[in-house]
Amino acid sequence: MNQTLLNGILDGDRVLLSKAITLIESRKSSDREQAYQLVNAVLPYSGNSMRIGITGSPGVGKSTFIDSFGDFLTKLGYKVAVLAIDPSSNISGGSILGDKTRMERLAANANAFVRPSPTSGELGGVGQRTYEAMLLCEAAGYDIVLIETVGVGQSEIAVREIVDMVLFLTIAGSGDELQGIKRGIMETVDLVVVNKADLFEKRKIAELKENLKYALHLFPEKQSQQKTNVIAVSAIEDTGLKQVWESIEGYFKGIKENLFYIENRKVQKVSWMKKTLHSLILDSLLQTSGFKSSFEKFEQEVLLDKISPTEAALKIFNEISPKD
Amino acid sequence: MNQTLLNGILDGDRVLLSKAITLIESRKSSDREQAYQLVNAVLPYSGNSMRIGITGSPGVGKSTFIDSFGDFLTKLGYKVAVLAIDPSSNISGGSILGDKTRMERLAANANAFVRPSPTSGELGGVGQRTYEAMLLCEAAGYDIVLIETVGVGQSEIAVREIVDMVLFLTIAGSGDELQGIKRGIMETVDLVVVNKADLFEKRKIAELKENLKYALHLFPEKQSQQKTNVIAVSAIEDTGLKQVWESIEGYFKGIKENLFYIENRKVQKVSWMKKTLHSLILDSLLQTSGFKSSFEKFEQEVLLDKISPTEAALKIFNEISPKD
Repeated sequence: MNQTLLNGILDGDRVLLSKAITLIESRKSSDREQAYQLVNAVLPYSGNSMRIGITGSPGVGKSTFIDSFGDFLTKLGYKVAVLAIDPSSNISGGSILGDKTRMERLAANANAFVRPSPTSGELGGVGQRTYEAMLLCEAAGYDIVLIETVGVGQSEIAVREIVDMVLFLTIAGSGDELQGIKRGIMETVDLVVVNKADLFEKRKIAELKENLKYALHLFPEKQSQQKTNVIAVSAIEDTGLKQVWESIEGYFKGIKENLFYIENRKVQKVSWMKKTLHSLILDSLLQTSGFKSSFEKFEQEVLLDKISPTEAALKIFNEISPKD
Repeated sequence: MNQTLLNGILDGDRVLLSKAITLIESRKSSDREQAYQLVNAVLPYSGNSMRIGITGSPGVGKSTFIDSFGDFLTKLGYKVAVLAIDPSSNISGGSILGDKTRMERLAANANAFVRPSPTSGELGGVGQRTYEAMLLCEAAGYDIVLIETVGVGQSEIAVREIVDMVLFLTIAGSGDELQGIKRGIMETVDLVVVNKADLFEKRKIAELKENLKYALHLFPEKQSQQKTNVIAVSAIEDTGLKQVWESIEGYFKGIKENLFYIENRKVQKVSWMKKTLHSLILDSLLQTSGFKSSFEKFEQEVLLDKISPTEAALKIFNEISPKD
């Protein structure tokens, strides 16, 4: 166990917190062993933050909103950490949030911690490293963890599985309310923020809010039993942030009262355990010697309609299974 | 190998075809062995039908539409089989399609075959038995296989994985176009049928068609590169069926020309093989002796925050893995 890292995290040292997250992200198996120990060591100090996912299409101004809103929260006396679920970082070789100038105010704020969390291709899938990084941030004393989704699809589903609340950012114009519905996001979001409200006519904003409310009322009640508010904000003019915060506080009050908060976190933990286990099992068997050649042989037979896909699966399974 | 069943299927005997599907649905392992052999034996005679999935919310009139449309197709000289992907049948103890009076015309039609296909809880998940039943129907000479989804969610995803084309049925009123988008169906459907058009004002129907077309144009081009048409029909008045059929023919012509038809079927076969293999592997390891107690022990530790979910997964995996 790296005691220096542990002490540094518990002291709220941002440099050592950053180093610890790098350790978590490492693929080296010796690092993994250390990382597991570190995560287990911080567990008793974690769990106390408000975990909030922030999603929305590219171009709606997620980073600018997080910069303004995070700064606003630190002025209320909170310590704010910003992480990203970024399935693309493995391909691009870097994370979008790595460019810290995108969050100028937070980057210069002593009560904020901004950190990308590349996760692609990792055991357990998108988000596991972010989950562990979040635990470290909590142990370092951050009261609110904002998790930005980067890219679409996978990362939006992944964020829901590690947070207490999901904010959906959108802007007026171009039928983004439909896009949100289409991608199955709207159904599960807990707060809709209409961003860049200053750029559009008041009438346009009111219309979008009405459309969103109409769309939201079509969905069945969420498990949290909390109403999904729609709030217009201007990140540039810093308006609407107070209402967003009040709505978040109301949501957390509600889910703590009806116990969704605690139940949801329990479900998340067990689901995380199951997923990791499934990955371990599949990875292990698919790496069995002879698997690849067996798979390719029967894949060919399936494509030539010599055997059915089910029969092929059985034959591969029999070939790779340990014999008694 | 049950030669009587095989000969019966190839002769187009509906009673023996029905018996063969019952064999496929059996969970007895001795039956499974026979079923695999039968499916493999019909493989050379299968694959020649137009495989069409039919989905839509409860109440839009799927069965009535299939009854009319199937009858219409037999009048054009085609043999039509109707199957259902029914994830609920295991719970309800019977299948919705079991009530054949819901398709009166087809039930009495010598060129039609109507059969439910309960699939819940089966190896490989929803749809595998339907897939195999479809292969038998093809070997029995059916030119068109209509697969009705029953219930929501899983069965809609499953049908896409075994057919060439998906029809989405909807009706005017109640914002069903949004529901379709919400559930991620609209994005992948190949033809939208506005059903029960006779029950609504012409203006309402025109409006819905416009809304649907608008919604559809927001989606990225499908892999099939075919346009998604929107056609209003009245199953009761038998109007619009000709346009539906022309649209289906146009779609199949298009996907055969651009090779999506053949590529899609290849992808389906390999994906089916992989899924079955994954189920086999997971089922096998999760049934390892000691797994359940190991899982429950570490689940408790995770819930008490004694160890992280990742660590728990590793420990379970180590406990159940075969030792060298």
